[in-house]
Amino acid sequence: MKTFNYGVLTDNLIAGIQDYFKSAGYTDGVLGLSGGIDSAVVFVLGVKALGAAHMHALLMPNGKQSSPESISHAKLLINAFANKGSHSILDIHPMVDSIVKTFVLNSEKLGSHKPFSTLRSGNIAARVRMITLFDYAAANKCLVLGTENKSEHYLGYFTLFGDNASCVEPIRELLKTEVYDLAQYLGIPREIINKAPSADLWLGQTDEGELGFTYADADKMIELLESGLMESDKPGVMLANNKYKQITDHIGKVAFKNKLPYVVPLKCMKK
Amino acid sequence: MKTFNYGVLTDNLIAGIQDYFKSAGYTDGVLGLSGGIDSAVVFVLGVKALGAAHMHALLMPNGKQSSPESISHAKLLINAFANKGSHSILDIHPMVDSIVKTFVLNSEKLGSHKPFSTLRSGNIAARVRMITLFDYAAANKCLVLGTENKSEHYLGYFTLFGDNASCVEPIRELLKTEVYDLAQYLGIPREIINKAPSADLWLGQTDEGELGFTYADADKMIELLESGLMESDKPGVMLANNKYKQITDHIGKVAFKNKLPYVVPLKCMKK
Repeated sequence: MKTFNYGVLTDNLIAGIQDYFKSAGYTDGVLGLSGGIDSAVVFVLGVKALGAAHMHALLMPNGKQSSPESISHAKLLINAFANKGSHSILDIHPMVDSIVKTFVLNSEKLGSHKPFSTLRSGNIAARVRMITLFDYAAANKCLVLGTENKSEHYLGYFTLFGDNASCVEPIRELLKTEVYDLAQYLGIPREIINKAPSADLWLGQTDEGELGFTYADADKMIELLESGLMESDKPGVMLANNKYKQITDHIGKVAFKNKLPYVVPLKCMKK
Repeated sequence: MKTFNYGVLTDNLIAGIQDYFKSAGYTDGVLGLSGGIDSAVVFVLGVKALGAAHMHALLMPNGKQSSPESISHAKLLINAFANKGSHSILDIHPMVDSIVKTFVLNSEKLGSHKPFSTLRSGNIAARVRMITLFDYAAANKCLVLGTENKSEHYLGYFTLFGDNASCVEPIRELLKTEVYDLAQYLGIPREIINKAPSADLWLGQTDEGELGFTYADADKMIELLESGLMESDKPGVMLANNKYKQITDHIGKVAFKNKLPYVVPLKCMKK
């Protein structure tokens, strides 16, 4: 696979963030720092683009659903890159719990008799983080930096209007494997780089375990899709491989998520 | 101003909803029924497109912040169009309250010492409604129907990731004044048509009071903008009028909301 010159890429992303903030008339940014690789990379880019004093970080564990490691890794990063940066820890569990309890209490009228799944409460947690970030941004005149990467985007691996909700996405054009390479270039603590990627929606969750394939394989497939080669017959050999078929099927099935909301088109004219 | 043939338009929108549900593989839809004109029109279109038994409505008042009229108007509509339709009332106030209380309790660490504004709690209410609708949709295998119209879209008059968050938007191509005409054509109860438009985020709020101009004037301006005439010198006379200048200034200022999130572009190539 082709790779970036990560020094040039870093300058590109920093300038992109600076340009957007300037054009929007903002000096400060905020993001949710999860302890994972994506938010770590965006945080460091934000510190470099805006200055540590202007890059706010919210650590938002969801009570016991979040790994204690996540907080300690986020703190490692802050200590390494932004000693003077503004950051706060807010346990979102009371808010998530209030919502889940309301839904369970009203399950009869809400038509949901099934037990409340970890997926549903995970989605609620992601959306409560969005609410927290946007309220913080409104109160402190910040823009919200998003942490989506290209692989998550293609794989639909995010909570709609939750972790994909932001003002500006600095690494949305990078594959997950490229986010790792960039993290290494930026000197992000090894503890963050070496652990298995996880949305941390429940204890022990890993992205690759849930998806059923690795990011390395998914990224190869996404590059192939973007190259336009899928249109020709060339990938026939690759697609015969079940693993790649599984990935393209997955991408096809979730593609609608990136196109929401669908706007019903007008086919009649005004007279 | 040119107008639609509202019979033809209705068929167009119904077919558009049906096509989208069919292609997505869903039979049921859900929307938040506020008692206002937009959700009333989308509800009736949804009932006609999917059948009353497949069109779910959630009435989500926010305790005493919502006008009691809103619920009675929503019920009028359900009685008129969907006696057998599935609908539920859920007071979202306990959830909104839990979030506001958490933010106030942690205002020191969240950097927000100012008193909590009605705007901020209004945005939280809109986003809690989004969480409720998407959880309901997940539990009951529904798609969420949105209620945004073209005027609100241009005027940025919505809560980002709140009331503009949906799967499908049936009336996004209609101006507010056209939504009124369509409501009349559909036979929506006069009580809903005759009251002042309000986001109902706090008691006594009206859209036009908050915006500082009427939808009738805004819609004239939006038509002009879309016609491309703004590019020429022709609207010079119109723009000399302060009211129209106020509207174009407003539209320019909020345009960024419809382009979020901004994705930082890559300007360097892989090698």
